[in-house]
Formats: sequence, structure tokens, C-alpha cells
Amino acid sequence: MADLLTGAHHDPSERYVSNPHPSPGETVEVSVELPAGARIAEIGLRSVRDGEGTFIEGRSEVIGSRRRWHFELPCENEIVPYRFRCVGNSGPQWLTGIGMVGHDPQDQFDFRLMTTGGPPSWVPETVWYQIFPDRFASSGAAGDLPGWAWSCDWDTPVAVGPRAMTQIYGGDLVGIAAKLDHLVELGVGGIYLTPIFPARSSHRYDATTFDRVDPLLGGDEALIGLRRACDDKGLRLIADITLNHTGDGHEWFRAARADADAVEAGFYCFADHPDSYACWFGVASLPKLDHRSNELQYRLYRGPKSVAGRFLAPPFSLDGWRVDAANMTGRDGAVDLNREVRRAVRATSDAISPERWLVAEHVHDISRDADGPGWHGWMNYSGVSRPIASWLGDPALLQTLTAGPGQDPRGGEAVARAIDEVRASIPWAFGLGSMALLGSHDTPRWRTLAASGELADVGFGLLMSLPGSPCLLYGDEIGLLGENNEQTRTPMPWDRTRWDHDLLARRRALIRLRSSSPALARGGFRWAERSADALAFIRASRTERLLVRATRDAAPPLRCPVSVMGDDAELLFGGETATSTRRVDLLEFGASGPSFAIWRLQPDIWRLQPDL
Amino acid sequence: MADLLTGAHHDPSERYVSNPHPSPGETVEVSVELPAGARIAEIGLRSVRDGEGTFIEGRSEVIGSRRRWHFELPCENEIVPYRFRCVGNSGPQWLTGIGMVGHDPQDQFDFRLMTTGGPPSWVPETVWYQIFPDRFASSGAAGDLPGWAWSCDWDTPVAVGPRAMTQIYGGDLVGIAAKLDHLVELGVGGIYLTPIFPARSSHRYDATTFDRVDPLLGGDEALIGLRRACDDKGLRLIADITLNHTGDGHEWFRAARADADAVEAGFYCFADHPDSYACWFGVASLPKLDHRSNELQYRLYRGPKSVAGRFLAPPFSLDGWRVDAANMTGRDGAVDLNREVRRAVRATSDAISPERWLVAEHVHDISRDADGPGWHGWMNYSGVSRPIASWLGDPALLQTLTAGPGQDPRGGEAVARAIDEVRASIPWAFGLGSMALLGSHDTPRWRTLAASGELADVGFGLLMSLPGSPCLLYGDEIGLLGENNEQTRTPMPWDRTRWDHDLLARRRALIRLRSSSPALARGGFRWAERSADALAFIRASRTERLLVRATRDAAPPLRCPVSVMGDDAELLFGGETATSTRRVDLLEFGASGPSFAIWRLQPDIWRLQPDL
Repeated sequence: MADLLTGAHHDPSERYVSNPHPSPGETVEVSVELPAGARIAEIGLRSVRDGEGTFIEGRSEVIGSRRRWHFELPCENEIVPYRFRCVGNSGPQWLTGIGMVGHDPQDQFDFRLMTTGGPPSWVPETVWYQIFPDRFASSGAAGDLPGWAWSCDWDTPVAVGPRAMTQIYGGDLVGIAAKLDHLVELGVGGIYLTPIFPARSSHRYDATTFDRVDPLLGGDEALIGLRRACDDKGLRLIADITLNHTGDGHEWFRAARADADAVEAGFYCFADHPDSYACWFGVASLPKLDHRSNELQYRLYRGPKSVAGRFLAPPFSLDGWRVDAANMTGRDGAVDLNREVRRAVRATSDAISPERWLVAEHVHDISRDADGPGWHGWMNYSGVSRPIASWLGDPALLQTLTAGPGQDPRGGEAVARAIDEVRASIPWAFGLGSMALLGSHDTPRWRTLAASGELADVGFGLLMSLPGSPCLLYGDEIGLLGENNEQTRTPMPWDRTRWDHDLLARRRALIRLRSSSPALARGGFRWAERSADALAFIRASRTERLLVRATRDAAPPLRCPVSVMGDDAELLFGGETATSTRRVDLLEFGASGPSFAIWRLQPDIWRLQPDL
Repeated sequence: MADLLTGAHHDPSERYVSNPHPSPGETVEVSVELPAGARIAEIGLRSVRDGEGTFIEGRSEVIGSRRRWHFELPCENEIVPYRFRCVGNSGPQWLTGIGMVGHDPQDQFDFRLMTTGGPPSWVPETVWYQIFPDRFASSGAAGDLPGWAWSCDWDTPVAVGPRAMTQIYGGDLVGIAAKLDHLVELGVGGIYLTPIFPARSSHRYDATTFDRVDPLLGGDEALIGLRRACDDKGLRLIADITLNHTGDGHEWFRAARADADAVEAGFYCFADHPDSYACWFGVASLPKLDHRSNELQYRLYRGPKSVAGRFLAPPFSLDGWRVDAANMTGRDGAVDLNREVRRAVRATSDAISPERWLVAEHVHDISRDADGPGWHGWMNYSGVSRPIASWLGDPALLQTLTAGPGQDPRGGEAVARAIDEVRASIPWAFGLGSMALLGSHDTPRWRTLAASGELADVGFGLLMSLPGSPCLLYGDEIGLLGENNEQTRTPMPWDRTRWDHDLLARRRALIRLRSSSPALARGGFRWAERSADALAFIRASRTERLLVRATRDAAPPLRCPVSVMGDDAELLFGGETATSTRRVDLLEFGASGPSFAIWRLQPDIWRLQPDL
């Protein structure tokens, strides 16, 4: 019996907030839902305004068998935290972003609205396809390689160790443009390209200039061509920008080293010019940028002529940037300019168009950086990849996922708590503006990391149904494998006899479901089940309500009250093992062994109130 | 049986960190203590450096029956968060500031060091005595009162409602200086004065100038005299500064209203000059300051000639400021300059002397403001006053303690959790630099708020033994009562026949114990018991280890393993009801009914290692 469904519920989604992306000064209506028979007599809202706690009384209303509480919440500050005081039989408790607590909490897990703008409107409904440009598709146009590179045929195995970094297969942007039909058939909505600036490695995170697209990839013209091709197919296109460091071959760094008085010498963190300087993880070929330099700010991200600005504007018109190493950017010992950097990049982006997206690489707790106008969201490793891997992953491979001993295996309760803490510590809009992922070019392939093929399917289902804009890595859809970031970057095989077509069909079905579901795109989130081997939750928008259930092993069926769920459910995805049965006043959802299923629930009271 | 004592323990105190106040770039040694037989095989440390998670391996050492783990932690950033991964029988768990958790948490409750300086060295050992200058003692020198004031004899009851604000009893600084022997006998170490600038109310939070001390209080000369008198008695002296607003009678506000082009017009937040402007809680007589004005910054707190600077320097030489409404300061809708203000005030203060103290009024969650060089600490209502009141207070009076319905009654488990969350979400040094309190001029008197006289004693015991520099309000020591902030501000009776001498003796004994105990001043904190009616904890410095136990009702005795506690304990405070008994391998601590007791535990392994 899902007792998680018999208490009060709120989340800051469109279902419970009249406008989840309020403007500064706007008052929004905030609601709490109580099921029939809930033993809560009174609810109040506590918020913080201009640094001071405030308390707002609400009004309650009975509709059908349920009760709903409404509050008028003025949104004055950039971040508006709030929680609810619920008075029930067991005394007053607080309804927070991690659920009901019986003590007086700090504000960390308060629900949070943000008045500085949500993500671009198209982001939450977009499924992403990440491409590592050298390894996806080649037009065959690549000319002579630079001296650092060694050329490989498409079928050459990826090298092991440092040699892998200079292995060039010749994938390029023209090659990508020629393969867009594959993406359209798959159902994805956008492409995320890892770096496209000239560099001295296959990954190109060591840029040598930001002035132009790498000629090896086809140069500026090829990017403009890919942009047009994406427009033709209705695909979004974002690329990767590094603000934390450049390569040591970068023209700025060369100028900086050559002359301690050059303006570029102020772009880097020299402890002792020219040989001692701060680097990314101490790697000397990746010198860290010093954002105290005004000239650096203007060249890199302040204003439309900066690197960040120029490629978001026509003719390149990228839809956004994935910001590499955003967690470290501007941070070096006692100096922390991260806030200034992210706000400046956002101002540049917004000035070109508020429909441009900024998504930050940040691999652990981003909550203190999600404080207003900066990144729209992040690559949610902490709240998606790692929790899912800890539940479904091969313990022997989890070690690669964090610094030190890596990620530990966890049961479903701990996984749910980890997911909750991440979601509850960032503004709701920031979560919607984030990229959900199971892996990337920096991790093992999910198909390898998952403890079995069945569990890989379960994990992919969770990826497509948790909040955030999901992203898969090129080739994940055909079953590519990879035990580490080198093996993961294997060339995409275009010989279709090497594809796992059954897997492709399953992935496509779920991607298409995700792409067309308002509840999965923007719906709220509510747990229905949290046990060692089963996790289930409801995603509900104003117009659609879905039950998502994942099991990693045989688990007892989930029983939910008909009064909450409706008395019938339609299976949208799940194969033969997923069942739903009505038993008197309960709906029962079952499965044998590892499973992933999505059911459409009956319309409920909220759907009948489109004015909410 | 106190199973809280059988697991791993760390806190960022001097007992477990080689230097709890590291300089930037310093590497400190961090230790985790395991009692005999603890089932934890391995411990690692996870920190964040320059925004990136890092993992540090340790080494373990067995001393006697215990194990100790050591880690070398480099402290590069302003804030250094860390937690421990402990591998035991039940899989890996994280030891955080709120204890052991079995999921992968966000960083909010990580332990936290701060490299931007701890509080002045004298703060943690100081017990404070808050004085509301008009109501403590009068020299009889007050001359003619201004027109807004009505003069009262010392024995006139405090008025009810708005009239109370203009009631002047004639207390002054010369009067205070004449009564310092009372404070010395009581054992307190410092005086906190509410505002002393000229104003148009008895509380003086509506300053009309910051240029001089109110002539009604004796003017600048009287403050200089009080400073000298305090020096003679070895007492510290701090006063109250308001950076959030002035009175509408302030010379700056008059100039601002008179001329929209005056520089002072930029000091306030005019929506429509001259009649519409932002105010403290919408009270028109308290116009809010606009910290975007550079001129305001320089006049008020930037540099030695500013108000904040001038009174910290000779001849006034205040030991610090209590910063009024620090939570709201610089915050107004989309504008949030609080960080800039607190850093600027700190720079001014540090330039005069790093031994000056800045303690912020902030009545809820200050964790996001405790992020480096700003306030040294805060008035810890959230982690001391409110939790203690929720456990021991009269439910009918709790309503006055927060916005809205007020504070709810709570059991001991919930109280412990609230205390933990506050402590764990701020840097350790910030907690030590904070003021602990049961009430102030803004609340009911604790003796009234407590549900009984016995429980008032228990609460006072907790005040003196929880981390932070305790503060009592003048007259609390002789049993003054007050149901609200008006009644609380009653004049101090100097007719000693009206004093509760038994209560005074009990308060004095505990204040003296607090003032002389290194463990209560700087020691770590570890729970030994958390139940509905009993709370017990260990405070331990390098040289002293105390057990503190508070009960609000009859409760079973606390039983602790001799292997952790030693086999004997010396009762330092607690009266006849507190007992300690050895039973085989357990020490048992008991009491009947409400009780508060402190025992000195036997020296333990940590004391024997003075090099730690």
C-alpha cells in the first residue's frame, strides 16, 4: 500500500504553482493537494522575503473527495524559498522538498522558485543526442592532419592510455549533417557537440584558439551548414565552451608566456612567470584562466563580440552552450569569481535571445551556484546518473564515477533520498533546465556500466522519466559498449548489421514517448514507492498524469488507493511483464524481475481545473 | 545504553582538527575517533577544492583500546567542506555534520572549515550581559527630554502598546559604569549595549544621527568613560549598529526627502520621491538604506572614518558590533548586496583590529551568509533559543517566537535534529563566533517563557553548555519576568530585596563554570542521548571532557560504556538529584524530574596526546 500517496503533496511544477517561472514582483498561487481522508487540519506557508521569514495563511477548498489549500505567494527576490506547516494528528510538521519532517529544519530543502527566468521554453521537452565530433561520422573531407595527430581508419580500435588523446578518426560536421535522418528516426530533438574549436587532442578541450571552428571539422562553414541542416530537420544544436582553461597551445597562452607584460599574461594564473601557473587538475597543458582580467572577460564572454556571444548569434546561431568545468571556473584558492562569470555569460546569452540555453558541467552539489541569473541548469550527474548507477550498476565499474573510491552501490530507499536531496536543493526551474544523463564521453557507456542488459533498460527508462532534459551519447541507442572514457569514445559504426536493432526499437519507443509527453517534460514529481528493489513515482502536468515504476529484481506489487489514482490505468510502455489490476479500492501494479513501465492514469480533479 | 557513543565521531573542534581556524593554503590534520569495537574497517575523506570534489586517503592508528584515523586536508578556499566515507558491516556510509547517513548526500551538512579567520580569540570564552541602556541604571544626570519622550520614574510599570516606545526612564552609560561590580560578581565577561545613537524612541533603533552617542545617555564622553571602566574590570563592550535602515528623523533622511538631487537621496530606496520608499517591515518611520550608494558605504562602514570604523577605534574602542537586522541588510527585491556589505564591514573592522567582533542579528537560516569574510557569527536564535523553547517553553507563549503561528512544541529528538542542522550548516568557527541566547529585548523573558521555574533552570543550563558565546539579558539573573518585548524591557530593580537570590546563586555558579571551562568554550560537541524528555552531550576540548545532561521530566537513566567515558565522573553542577553510578562496564547517569547536570569525565586518550 503506497502510504506515500495518502499525505499532503506539493511540488513547484505547473500543477501546483500558477506560474513556476514568475517575474520579479509577481504574486503566484501555490497549492497543496490532500487526498481524501488525509489527517491534516490546517496548512500555512512560510517563506523568506528580503532575508526575513514571513508566514502566509491560505484558504482551503474541497473538490470531490479531496481538499486543496491555496496560498498567494509574492515573489520579490531572485530566489523565493518556501515550505508548508501542516497541522495534523501528530502535531505540526513541515512539508519540504524532501517530504514531511517533524523537526524545525534549516531552509536548504525548502521548495524554491526563481524570478530570474526559467530555461528556454523548448528545453524541457527536448531529448538530447551527444556527439563527440571526431567519432560520429566522417565526410571524408579531412585534409592533412597536424603533427600531433595520428590518423586512424574508422574501424581501428580506440587506443589505450595517453595515445588515445591524439588519435584522429576524421569525423566532422559535414559528416554529422549527413546523418541527421538517423537522429530524426530515433526521435531526439537536439544535438550536443563536444568542443569544435581547434586544439591538439581528439577531445578538443585544450583549445588553441576560440576564433574559428576547427578546419579538421570543416571550419566555420561546416558549422553554419550543420546549423541549417538541423533547422531543416527541426533539431536544436548546442556546443561546448570551456571558460575554466585553454590548451597550452592557445594563442593567448603563447602570448602570455612570451611576454609577462602582454595583456594575455593577465588571462592566466601565473605563480611565477612563465613556467609556474595554475592548471586544470594540475595538468600543465591545460592552464587555468584568471577571470579577474577584464580583457579576458570581454574576449571570452562579455557582450556579443565575445566568443560566447558570437557563436550564439547568426550565422552560427547555436541554441546554447554546455559550459565545460563550470564548477571550477573562476575558482582558485582564495579567489572565487564563479558567480560573476556565470552572471556575465547569462547576460550575454540573454541579450542575444532568452531562448538560448546555458547548461553547466558540475559533477556534485551545484545548489550554491543555482542562485539566480547564471546557468539555466546543469548536467545532472548527482541527481540522475550516479543514483541510478548506484542502484543498477555493476559494482566493479562504479569506482570510475567519483573521485577516490567511486560510487557505492545503494538500495532504492537511499537512491530516492539522493535524488530528493538534489531536486530539493535547487530551484524547480533549474531542475527543468538541466540535462539528465546516464553517462557521457567522460564515463563508461551505460550499457556497460549497468549490471545487466535488463537493468540497462530499466535505467534508460528512469532517464527518460525523471525531471530534466535527457541526453544519450551517440551509439547508446544501438548498444555500443565502453568501460572507460577512452573506450566510450569509439567511432559510431554505420554498418547496420552491427547494431542491436531490438535495443534500438526499445530506445526509440521510449524517446518518442518522452518527447511527446507534457507530464514527463514539465510535470511534477511525487514518489509512490521507495523500497530496496522498486521505485515508483507520479509525473503529472496540468493535462496528463503518469505512473512510472522501475524494479531491479522481483518485488511485491505496488498497491495504490483508487481514490488517488483513479480506477484504471493504461499501459504506455512496459512489455508483457507489467500488469495493472483493480482490487476493490486498490489499483495494483506488478512485474516479474527487472522491469520498467509507464502507465497513464485517469484524469483527476486537477485536470478538470484548467484555470489552475 | 548510549549507542550514539559507539560509532565514529568527528567535529571540527580543536580536539579533532589541528587548527580549526586555518590560514589560506594551510594543511590541517583532521581526525576521526572510533571507540573500542567499532565496526568500521576503513575511512576516507571527501572534500571540495576549487569547486571540484576530491578524495583523501587517511591512515589509522590504534591507541589503547581505540582507533583513530588521520587525514591531511589542504585548505585552499574560503570555505572547506568535508565529510567521511566510513566502510562498515552495513556498507559504506557518510559521516556528516548531522551524523551518519546511508545515502549519498548533498554537501549542505558537510563539516566546514573557514580560512578567512575565526572569531576574535576572546569571544568563545565570554559570557555576555545584554543591556537596554534606558532601563539598566541611571546616574540621574539626564537633562531635559526631547519632545517625543515622556519621562517615567524607575518604578513606573512599562506601558502597553505604542506608548511604550517613547517611555524614557533615564538609564544612561554613567549609570551602567557605576554598576559593573554586579556584573563582575555574576561572572560575565562582556556587555552588549542595544543602540546608543540619538533616536526618537526608547529602543533607539530609529537613529537620527550616527555622529555621536545620544546626549540622553551621556554622550561620547560617557561611552569613553564606560569603556575605561570596563577595561578596569576586565569586561568587553560591544554596541548595536543598524545598517538596514535609519529613523525617518535621521539627518540623512531629512536631506534626502528635502532634495531629490542630494547625495543622501541615493542612500534610501525611494519608489517615488519623497513619499514612497522601502522600509523595515513597511514601518514608514524606519526607511531602508540603499547600499548601491558608494557615499553611503563610505559614511556608514567603509574605512576607519565610517561610523562602523570610528567607534571600533580609540577612544571608544568598542570590542565589536552587534549588527541589527543583518539578515535584511542590502536586500530589497531583485537587489541583494548583503554579501558586499558584510565583507566591507569586516574589512573595516579587521583593519582596526582582527580582535574586533561582528555578530549578526539573523533570526532563521544564516547558512548562505556564513560564506567567508563577513560576520564572525550570529545571534543564534535558530540553533539555541527556539529549539530550547520548543522543548521547555510554555506552548501559549511560543507563538511570539517566529512569524505566523510561532514556534511549535517539540520533543527532544526533534530538538536535537534542529540544533544539529543549524550547527552542521555553518562553518564550525562561525558557530564558535556566535552568540547563544534564550531571549533578548525582542522576546519574552526566558523565566516567563519557560513552562516552569525548574525548566527555566534546565534551559539556562543548556544555554551555558551549548557551543557559542552565551548572552543573558540584564535582570535574567535575578528572575525578572516579561511576557513580550515591552514587558521584557522593564527597568532593573536595584532594591535587592526584590531579587530572587537563590536563582542568582544558581545562575552565578553556572556562569562561572562556563567562563572557566575550556571544553564549554571551544570543545567539540557529540550527542550521548536524544529522547523525548532527555538530551545529553559531551563537550570536549584537548584538555577537558564534560558530560552535560538535561531532562525535562522523569526519564530512564543514561547508560554509557566505561570504555568511552572512563569509569568515574565528577559532578560539577547539578544539585542533589543528579547521580552517577558505575555498574560493571557501564556508567549510569540519573536524575528525577527536570534536571540539569554537568560531570567532568576522566581524562581520555586525547588528553594524553597534547600534540594533537
